[in-house]
Amino acid sequence: MVGFEDIKDRVCASVVSKFKTAEEAAEMIKDGDCLGVSGFTPSGYPKAVPLALAEKAKKTPFKVNVWTGASVGPEIDAAMVEAGCMDRRLPYQTNATLRKAINAGKVRYADIHLSHFAQMARYGFMADRKKIDFAIVEVCKINDLGDGKVGLIPTTSMGNSSSYVATAPKVIVEVNTTQPVGLEGMHDSYVPLDPPNRKPIPIERPEDRIGTPYIPCDLDKIVAVVPCDITDKVRPLGEIDEDAKHMGQNLVNFLKNEVKEGRLPANLLPLQSGVGSVANAVINGLVNSDFKDLTVYTEVIQDGMFDLIDAGKLRVASGTALTPSPECQKKFYENVEHYKKYLLLRPQEISNSPEVARRIGVIAMNTAIEVDIYGNVNSTHVCGTKLMNGVGGSGDFARNGYLTVFFTNSLAKGGKISSVVPFCSHIDHATLDVDVIVSERGVADLRGLTPKEKAPIIIDQIANPKYQPYLYDYFKRACEKCGNSQTPHILSEAFDVYKWFEETGSMEKPAE
Amino acid sequence: MVGFEDIKDRVCASVVSKFKTAEEAAEMIKDGDCLGVSGFTPSGYPKAVPLALAEKAKKTPFKVNVWTGASVGPEIDAAMVEAGCMDRRLPYQTNATLRKAINAGKVRYADIHLSHFAQMARYGFMADRKKIDFAIVEVCKINDLGDGKVGLIPTTSMGNSSSYVATAPKVIVEVNTTQPVGLEGMHDSYVPLDPPNRKPIPIERPEDRIGTPYIPCDLDKIVAVVPCDITDKVRPLGEIDEDAKHMGQNLVNFLKNEVKEGRLPANLLPLQSGVGSVANAVINGLVNSDFKDLTVYTEVIQDGMFDLIDAGKLRVASGTALTPSPECQKKFYENVEHYKKYLLLRPQEISNSPEVARRIGVIAMNTAIEVDIYGNVNSTHVCGTKLMNGVGGSGDFARNGYLTVFFTNSLAKGGKISSVVPFCSHIDHATLDVDVIVSERGVADLRGLTPKEKAPIIIDQIANPKYQPYLYDYFKRACEKCGNSQTPHILSEAFDVYKWFEETGSMEKPAE
Repeated sequence: MVGFEDIKDRVCASVVSKFKTAEEAAEMIKDGDCLGVSGFTPSGYPKAVPLALAEKAKKTPFKVNVWTGASVGPEIDAAMVEAGCMDRRLPYQTNATLRKAINAGKVRYADIHLSHFAQMARYGFMADRKKIDFAIVEVCKINDLGDGKVGLIPTTSMGNSSSYVATAPKVIVEVNTTQPVGLEGMHDSYVPLDPPNRKPIPIERPEDRIGTPYIPCDLDKIVAVVPCDITDKVRPLGEIDEDAKHMGQNLVNFLKNEVKEGRLPANLLPLQSGVGSVANAVINGLVNSDFKDLTVYTEVIQDGMFDLIDAGKLRVASGTALTPSPECQKKFYENVEHYKKYLLLRPQEISNSPEVARRIGVIAMNTAIEVDIYGNVNSTHVCGTKLMNGVGGSGDFARNGYLTVFFTNSLAKGGKISSVVPFCSHIDHATLDVDVIVSERGVADLRGLTPKEKAPIIIDQIANPKYQPYLYDYFKRACEKCGNSQTPHILSEAFDVYKWFEETGSMEKPAE
Repeated sequence: MVGFEDIKDRVCASVVSKFKTAEEAAEMIKDGDCLGVSGFTPSGYPKAVPLALAEKAKKTPFKVNVWTGASVGPEIDAAMVEAGCMDRRLPYQTNATLRKAINAGKVRYADIHLSHFAQMARYGFMADRKKIDFAIVEVCKINDLGDGKVGLIPTTSMGNSSSYVATAPKVIVEVNTTQPVGLEGMHDSYVPLDPPNRKPIPIERPEDRIGTPYIPCDLDKIVAVVPCDITDKVRPLGEIDEDAKHMGQNLVNFLKNEVKEGRLPANLLPLQSGVGSVANAVINGLVNSDFKDLTVYTEVIQDGMFDLIDAGKLRVASGTALTPSPECQKKFYENVEHYKKYLLLRPQEISNSPEVARRIGVIAMNTAIEVDIYGNVNSTHVCGTKLMNGVGGSGDFARNGYLTVFFTNSLAKGGKISSVVPFCSHIDHATLDVDVIVSERGVADLRGLTPKEKAPIIIDQIANPKYQPYLYDYFKRACEKCGNSQTPHILSEAFDVYKWFEETGSMEKPAE
């Protein structure tokens, strides 16, 4: 196990007196406290102190609020949940244990746009008007800045750490020896002032730096510096299947035509891509395209971005977290100096900033759970009730990008579920935030169309032939029933597919 | 009728050769053309040329696309619709004749966020990839700028005029003699560059000017200068009823507490307020409050803002249109020099800019048609199918403001309709864009809460006692049915209230 000696050469002398074990640090945290932790997609989150908190809770029950960047690893979202010490958890998650607890109402979770969370936390807008008691952040190094200040060098994510450190009265720092010190220089820490004093965020290109490569912190606020050698629990990406390849190809063809028609520059505009296998497959489509000098302004930097670097097609990728697969992580750690020339990590308030996304004209690409025939998107709730992951940054980019694309397979659950339905069972993105939908079958370009024009295109290009007859029939009957309406629906039938799914295990209309 | 002589002293000599009658100007416009017209809420829109177009269409049928700022007057949205010469109409409307034609599918309309429209039009993203053929703008004056350029002085709105004039190959100008020349100086014209060349919009306070008091235009592009003396068709505001008074009071009390708790400065933050009687009543609540040195950064400047000026409580109101009642219009026209010290009109791309709204921290206040028990908002579709007005700027502000408030009466149609329903029949604003809901009954503060925490608060504070028992019962049974879920619903019952309304004329559950 890692000890104080192992982190001595990573930290400045001024913090040595604050060395504590994870257990000692956990002891400082009390029932009802609100923790602002580093981490975004299981990258760069604290591990030792959360595990110690879980152990502590097994002996003496207590509950804390846990505010992160986004999803974090099992040391927080499984261990603390299982120990019963997590009360409110914001603003995003993907862990199966946590998800189960949220759906069961044991952990209180609410979806919040990822760009909004830091400022809303600063404003004091969270439930019970809580503010952060402890910031707990993972770093690879601590530098002395003089004048009673130190610079915390984050690791594989920025998330909300800059804001949490700036506002927390007490800060616990985990120095992780598995994270290369070479990460220093890859971050750009910046916390905007709040209204009425906020200034423009001066980013005009994805590569623009506006802050400091460290998170500044008053030495006085640091209550513990804890050694840790537990690795980020990055996950393998799924295989890129045939459907995902077709989606990637459909996107590339669409973008090529946009360039041809003069609606996009030859090197496109900064790309934003959601998290997961489909998103990665889409980026892979670009790796195999003729596009070059690409830029990325996104939330999460996944394997595909590294492939774009390797293929010589990427100028810069700006994000808030690195979430490589285990193999890609190895490649990155072994070549940090090479890759970091192309990579830039920002606070999620900036990586996902509506202001910046709109200004630089991001091409927003995210995944939908389901879409309806009028182009509304459900990103979060399976059958309208069970939370899957959360809205994440999809809304930040979908609302504000230059062009908004949502991806979905036409089918899910081996064909038992149609990803195109008459009326989404939950709506995160209203149709006016959805320009284009791409499935393995085709592209539905919805820009500027009326609802009644959108429906046949979505059914034709996105829905699976298995479900097309029912969807056309619903749309036709809805138009007949309420012809004099902008968005025809038969509300008494609009959710029938979910009833059939519940009753028969398939969204197919049962034989009469 | 007004003639060329009447406008001579309002225009520079360089445009005199371009004087044309409305009929001559209308003759230039061909079938299939796309018109970008000035106007926002029936203010500052061209009147003579649209009427001439309608007359022309009665003789020789043709169709044109009409892109405006927002709603315009009957000279466009009734006369042209009745003459059958309007094909696509974007991006907002409120006219009864036009609404009927849209719902009947005779005019093709799509909702687009008002801050998005100008840029999407410039990008070439509208249906059929149309771009503007003619800009038609109302002005009160034309100034010579030298070098073959003139400065068009807009009237009572800015809307999308600056962008339309900048991008249209041909420009028709209506010089309206009913609009005081004293309006000059009240506008701030600015068109951002498009990505990848866009710069920060340098507004830090509502009063900041960033452009020119005129719309610059190449003399060569002007194909007609047409005299007009038809007035803006401004409408009287409804009486402020008891319910609206209670809503205003509920808001004031809520804001007072926010100030007390340190979550808002004493003079609040810039106010945005939607259009219509409820919005006006809410502003009226502020007129009668202790707040002072208020600022407004909104879309439409209504009577309430003038009352705030008269009460000495307003520092500045920035918007894109003036929409006073007829009485207030008279007061304004007679005292333009006085009021214009407090007023500033910007293009709607700037008045509604997400970048600016977020930076300066707007308090966004808009009206909902209905809300559901989880806090989703329907702003546009009655019973999910019939378009009412459109989403307008509500999304621009609700997503990006400091604090987002939606107003709704607990009942509509004399109690036959409940404004709180189990599941909104159309969703424009997902629950994560809704901080607070205010009805005449109370305030539902939803910030940071889980869906299951939101429901009882919304039912308790917003729903009417007449419908509360059913809503509580639905929520309780939904929780029982799918207890293990983040957002409990019984989808097969979620839309029952609309079925009952259709069958019985009331949303009340019929006796078994």
